[in-house]
Amino acid sequence: MGRIYVVGLGPGKEEYMTYVAAKALEESEVIIGYTVYIDLIKDRYPGKELLTTGMRQEKERCSLCLSNALEGKTVSLVCSGDSGVYGMASLMLEMAEGTEGVEIIVIPGITAALSGGAVLGAPLSHDFCVISLSDHLTPWELIEKRLRCAAEGDFAIAIYNPSSKLRKDYLKRACDILLEVIEKERVCGLVRNIGRDDESYNICTLDELKDMQVDMFTTVFIGNSATKVIDGRLVTPRGYLKND
Amino acid sequence: MGRIYVVGLGPGKEEYMTYVAAKALEESEVIIGYTVYIDLIKDRYPGKELLTTGMRQEKERCSLCLSNALEGKTVSLVCSGDSGVYGMASLMLEMAEGTEGVEIIVIPGITAALSGGAVLGAPLSHDFCVISLSDHLTPWELIEKRLRCAAEGDFAIAIYNPSSKLRKDYLKRACDILLEVIEKERVCGLVRNIGRDDESYNICTLDELKDMQVDMFTTVFIGNSATKVIDGRLVTPRGYLKND
Repeated sequence: MGRIYVVGLGPGKEEYMTYVAAKALEESEVIIGYTVYIDLIKDRYPGKELLTTGMRQEKERCSLCLSNALEGKTVSLVCSGDSGVYGMASLMLEMAEGTEGVEIIVIPGITAALSGGAVLGAPLSHDFCVISLSDHLTPWELIEKRLRCAAEGDFAIAIYNPSSKLRKDYLKRACDILLEVIEKERVCGLVRNIGRDDESYNICTLDELKDMQVDMFTTVFIGNSATKVIDGRLVTPRGYLKND
Repeated sequence: MGRIYVVGLGPGKEEYMTYVAAKALEESEVIIGYTVYIDLIKDRYPGKELLTTGMRQEKERCSLCLSNALEGKTVSLVCSGDSGVYGMASLMLEMAEGTEGVEIIVIPGITAALSGGAVLGAPLSHDFCVISLSDHLTPWELIEKRLRCAAEGDFAIAIYNPSSKLRKDYLKRACDILLEVIEKERVCGLVRNIGRDDESYNICTLDELKDMQVDMFTTVFIGNSATKVIDGRLVTPRGYLKND
């Protein structure tokens, strides 16, 4: 019986990995992932077969996992952040549909909403939404609709993939939609390179956020109507009612 | 300079803790938390001062942290799941406002949306909302509004606190609201006692979910319109468009 672990590594440094994730990698004979993530962990796993594929080669990566597991091997497919949230677990399960003799175990990791939130303070302490601005696999109209629904529901919002080479103005477009519902002064934050040595963050208003420079390594946070800045940290209170 | 780490322990067993969280606990002279969570970790930390407070004594817990940190100690305030998502980080930052000589560091953990999602498969692989049904600190009308917005935006949804002794029918009420927008056959899942020895899960339709028995240790997942059941797992595809 072959086994595939789909492992969330958490952000940046491997210290954000869980013990369960580390144990799965230790157990594996083969570790497969996007080149950049394999480079991050390779020194820790000498003697293991490390296989990499480039960006957007997700199907090739899952096929590699399946073919190795069908030989009876234990394989880890690694993802940054969580293995589920915009991760590889869903595609792996889809591509393995009906395959006998392979067990798939999904191991969670710290996604950027949590790790970036911790850097800023506690912006997601109440109900929240996670929305990706990437329209690679999602129609832009649906992204717009979700932004409107999130604003109307007074959710705190974590935005993934706010920009890329081909989508330089997407954060601005998203802010314009949010500003139809939310006041300009709403407090927001952004975190770059979470968990890495050059991690940095800003706190600003929604109106200022619109013109911020972001890249694909940035995660953006929009407060809800109760979010405030306390001693330089972004904090969404747990409650709306007084609790004295 | 005193220091307070607000530490997310992840679900159930301590193996879901990150290395960063474990390091913070090791560094701490005092570990403070709700009785149940301290019991879970106390054997691992002999020689440390362990302080507990009961359920809903969150303010007392934060005061204990502050008074110890003001004596120059390093303190860990532990939370199950993440330290931010319905955790103690926001209250700690609020109560410490303006306090000099105390540094507060928030350390994320695996929240139930991620750990429960991994148990079910990959239900949160696309945009999602996290909504708590607890009306202890939130007006029920706002919870209803958020459920409606989440359904209208075709988000996958993770529901926390679906029931308690005083709120036995809240999941049913939430399902009734979702059913105004979502079809009865929508696939859903629920996970009980995540990360513990008696962990269990079910996959069902939204119509069936309405009558499911849940308790405060259950996390509920509602798929989006593309979510499907693959080999007994709940899977939300990453994309809406074909990607061949």
